[in-house]
Amino acid sequence: MYFPSWLSQLCRGLSRPIGRTTQPTWGSFSRSLALSSQRRIPEFSSFIARTNTCGELRSSHLGQEVTLCGWIQYRRQNIFLVLRDFHGLVQVVIPQDESAASVKKILCEAPLESVVQVSGTVISRPPGQENPKMPTGEIEIKVKTAELLNSCKRLPFEIKDFVKKTEALRLQYRYLDLRSFQMQYNLRLRSQVVMKMREYLCNLHGFVDIETPTLFKRTPGGAKEFLVPSREPGKFYSLPQSPQQFKQLLMVGGLDRYFQVARCYRDEGSRPDRQPEFTQIDIEMSFVDQTGIRSLIEGLLQYSWPSDKNPLVVPFPSMTFAEALATYGTDKPDTRFGMKIVDISNAFRNTEVRFLQDALSKPQGTVKAMCVREGANYLKRKDIESIRKFAADHFNECSLLGKLRLACADLLEMKGMVLRDPAQFSFLWVVDFPLFLPKEENPMELESAHHPFTAPHPGDIHLLYTEPEKVRSQHYDLVLNGTEIGGGSIRIHDAELQHYILATLLKEDVKLLSHLLQALDYGAPPHGGIALGLDRLMCLVTGAPSIRDVIAFPKSFRGHDLMSNAPDSVPPQELKPYHIQVSWPADSEAERAH
Amino acid sequence: MYFPSWLSQLCRGLSRPIGRTTQPTWGSFSRSLALSSQRRIPEFSSFIARTNTCGELRSSHLGQEVTLCGWIQYRRQNIFLVLRDFHGLVQVVIPQDESAASVKKILCEAPLESVVQVSGTVISRPPGQENPKMPTGEIEIKVKTAELLNSCKRLPFEIKDFVKKTEALRLQYRYLDLRSFQMQYNLRLRSQVVMKMREYLCNLHGFVDIETPTLFKRTPGGAKEFLVPSREPGKFYSLPQSPQQFKQLLMVGGLDRYFQVARCYRDEGSRPDRQPEFTQIDIEMSFVDQTGIRSLIEGLLQYSWPSDKNPLVVPFPSMTFAEALATYGTDKPDTRFGMKIVDISNAFRNTEVRFLQDALSKPQGTVKAMCVREGANYLKRKDIESIRKFAADHFNECSLLGKLRLACADLLEMKGMVLRDPAQFSFLWVVDFPLFLPKEENPMELESAHHPFTAPHPGDIHLLYTEPEKVRSQHYDLVLNGTEIGGGSIRIHDAELQHYILATLLKEDVKLLSHLLQALDYGAPPHGGIALGLDRLMCLVTGAPSIRDVIAFPKSFRGHDLMSNAPDSVPPQELKPYHIQVSWPADSEAERAH
Repeated sequence: MYFPSWLSQLCRGLSRPIGRTTQPTWGSFSRSLALSSQRRIPEFSSFIARTNTCGELRSSHLGQEVTLCGWIQYRRQNIFLVLRDFHGLVQVVIPQDESAASVKKILCEAPLESVVQVSGTVISRPPGQENPKMPTGEIEIKVKTAELLNSCKRLPFEIKDFVKKTEALRLQYRYLDLRSFQMQYNLRLRSQVVMKMREYLCNLHGFVDIETPTLFKRTPGGAKEFLVPSREPGKFYSLPQSPQQFKQLLMVGGLDRYFQVARCYRDEGSRPDRQPEFTQIDIEMSFVDQTGIRSLIEGLLQYSWPSDKNPLVVPFPSMTFAEALATYGTDKPDTRFGMKIVDISNAFRNTEVRFLQDALSKPQGTVKAMCVREGANYLKRKDIESIRKFAADHFNECSLLGKLRLACADLLEMKGMVLRDPAQFSFLWVVDFPLFLPKEENPMELESAHHPFTAPHPGDIHLLYTEPEKVRSQHYDLVLNGTEIGGGSIRIHDAELQHYILATLLKEDVKLLSHLLQALDYGAPPHGGIALGLDRLMCLVTGAPSIRDVIAFPKSFRGHDLMSNAPDSVPPQELKPYHIQVSWPADSEAERAH
Repeated sequence: MYFPSWLSQLCRGLSRPIGRTTQPTWGSFSRSLALSSQRRIPEFSSFIARTNTCGELRSSHLGQEVTLCGWIQYRRQNIFLVLRDFHGLVQVVIPQDESAASVKKILCEAPLESVVQVSGTVISRPPGQENPKMPTGEIEIKVKTAELLNSCKRLPFEIKDFVKKTEALRLQYRYLDLRSFQMQYNLRLRSQVVMKMREYLCNLHGFVDIETPTLFKRTPGGAKEFLVPSREPGKFYSLPQSPQQFKQLLMVGGLDRYFQVARCYRDEGSRPDRQPEFTQIDIEMSFVDQTGIRSLIEGLLQYSWPSDKNPLVVPFPSMTFAEALATYGTDKPDTRFGMKIVDISNAFRNTEVRFLQDALSKPQGTVKAMCVREGANYLKRKDIESIRKFAADHFNECSLLGKLRLACADLLEMKGMVLRDPAQFSFLWVVDFPLFLPKEENPMELESAHHPFTAPHPGDIHLLYTEPEKVRSQHYDLVLNGTEIGGGSIRIHDAELQHYILATLLKEDVKLLSHLLQALDYGAPPHGGIALGLDRLMCLVTGAPSIRDVIAFPKSFRGHDLMSNAPDSVPPQELKPYHIQVSWPADSEAERAH
């Protein structure tokens, strides 16, 4: 029987790094986990009756009396059973002699996935019966006593990794899905990475972990904020998208190195791979510049990076927003592969090809190209045609070339070329974003490219009063393999400048932010910060297909909890204290009656 | 000038424990903080321009070139100024020579609480000018360059500890209040205690830090849960009071040691010293019994306890609910002092005193007494009279004797007796609570004394089907100095038993909990857990008068954020996507117009 040994390595890994050569692989990435070698092994069996975990027993335990608790994974001919816990599997020999009839009865009659406690002796497997694929494959347990802790009814699906389930079924029975090796690995790795981050921030660099409220008030432009009715008629809290205001106020309050693993909320309706609540590593520092924040984050990721992956090389490369757009056609380039976009306008200045002439004659018209190396070997006429169609379909989108580059990469990879190694982690800083963008609904007005507290680039401050649309910001994004996993900025700490940007340039209602403007007047230090999207980061680190695979109890893409059926109806009398009533849409009157 | 040196000790304390004899005190408790001695000192000045913090400079730094950033605390005759950061204070000598005119101008003209960056040399103070009360009192900074980072307008109050402010003013300008020594201490200590707890749970005992959703559905009896309207008409999320269901489901999912520093929500309207959102150290374990959980928590508190307090002695004493009621008249006794309640019924069996005879003739009638030692020396006739009146006022409350005991303690302490030492920490486990209580509104029906997932006491299971009101539970409370700071239980892991209790005994709608009942059927391990109230714990540890003093941005007792003015009005069009409208009470139509 094959048993992927990563789970036991995950636990042993806490004490010693795992040699790269012995790593098992499962799918496209390695599952073993090792943290820094100087840490002691946690006691997984303290405070409870078991003496050991199922996955940790080896020849070195021979002769020891052990007590194990676990789930029945498998039973063979009423002679053996395989017991499982989070740490791994172990083979248990069912006693066959008369005197142990009651033990035999328990172990033979309990349905699979029942929970049992067994006590017995660690013995060698008979010669020839060792299982080298199983970390505990040299030993087995000779049972003396057994207790059925809980019986299992017929399961809706098998708790085996190779049994494919729909995601809806997995989410409905999430508590069963969590027993899978993959979910155990993802959640345990996430916990350990966050713990390392905390050690780095708190113990090594003097950051203070401060909790900020999630019952707040709506922020200007906070249209994606969930509302929470209060007991005062017409008054609502809102669940903020980030602790942005609070962390800046903490800087004004002299708590000059703040971090928080912060729960944030964003109501975007139905969006695939978004969650209504998500987690960010939220950081703010006083007296810091961009370089400082970048070094901090590079050190943070390097320190907390799972040691079964290639160690991170710092500093990460950086690129301006303009360069990213020009070279990769996106502000979040996947730099694991080339196929850069090249401006070849000059080569065509004197061309007689009409459509190129037309393009170049327009203001800022350019001709750009992308070299698909070995494309001729990999791509067929049909593929070229599909690329041409893709280009035609997306022609008026300025990010066409970036999309085209990724579409070509998809095609090439389908044909067998390896372009984007999932085991490679290419971090990239993107800097010098514009401070403002024209509003979509009215391009004559400006809106913040990120948020209104972002400081302008020091070299462009003079443009604020003449050509604000040209001002670059001190915002920076952290991109990993083409996904934005973090962003932040140096903030405005000057009350007058903040007021000018809010009131004059953005035409926001400054009353909603009067507390922040006032705070800047009372000796606010220069400050800046960043937030890393923990769910997305862990999704990339574990190679999971969706962020739902690194969250214990995620919502479906419609925002539903398929297990508990949230959100749910509420009886009208429970709405009364909050002075709200439901406005039923005309066509759902029937539902209301129901 | 007197400077309390605890803040610098707080930081130095990270590297070495502070000798008990040199501790400064401020008010009734010590403010210094020391963590375990083997930890390295965090780098408080990494990634930024400053070389040192204001509070850390000593004679050993003499001659060093330093750059400091801080707030101007005080200026004396344009010759000295005192610069402050979170770490402490340092004296800066303002240069008087012509060549440094610009530096002098900056340092002399900046208003107090402005933020400046200065660079210069650490020099000795002239003989006789040392300040032994100030940790940096032997040195001063000879400034070469200075930069005004931000100027401060006139403050609404002085950032000095001895300037008394109303709490409303402190909350309105929370970002200024946070600069106070006390708030810096409270929040930094809280961060460090939580970090130690994480180390204990995660690194020493293999617990997994798992985040659970806060957008959930209402739970049976969850009348105190905030609602969050969804974009589906009539469907609401609710913000749960605890991750109770999720942590039990994690146990079913085989994540057998879970913890989370969990944000929880409870809408109780206006209650002093309660917060609508609060934080608990939430823990759940599989295969554990009461003894295991108690040992875990004792170890946890011992490990994370600030080392400037007396080390905790474990195990903590324990007491049954019945004993607590009989001896202290409450289920959360303050065991720092005696004055126990004694049953003296037997002494009066044959009394002829009429009111005693009457009392004893009633079913379960008793006569109880409390010995106020030295009471005669401390209490005057007037005091005795006030006690008599207190007793008369509260006569029909069963907890009368417990309240009387505390009222007597208040009186005695007002007279100067020391009964309840705030530096003493008396932990106590209270166990064997009843599983059910008669419903207040209908005493013929039962409700859960704690929650419906609490397992019955193994010795009382047979009573469940005959006299359920007599069943004791496996619930346990942790009490500190008369305040409940935690509670938990061994849970029901048997689906049938859980169904019987929910449906038959409690008459709850089991449909709302069908996912949990189903989960118990699929091999749920025996499990139990606990939650510690972090805000209350830190309040007691720091000796703060209110939990608002250990929370960065608390709400007022009416649930208002006095700084930002949350909760706030929301324009009707922002309610539309959520299919709700405000039901204005008749008398607030005027407000609506406004």
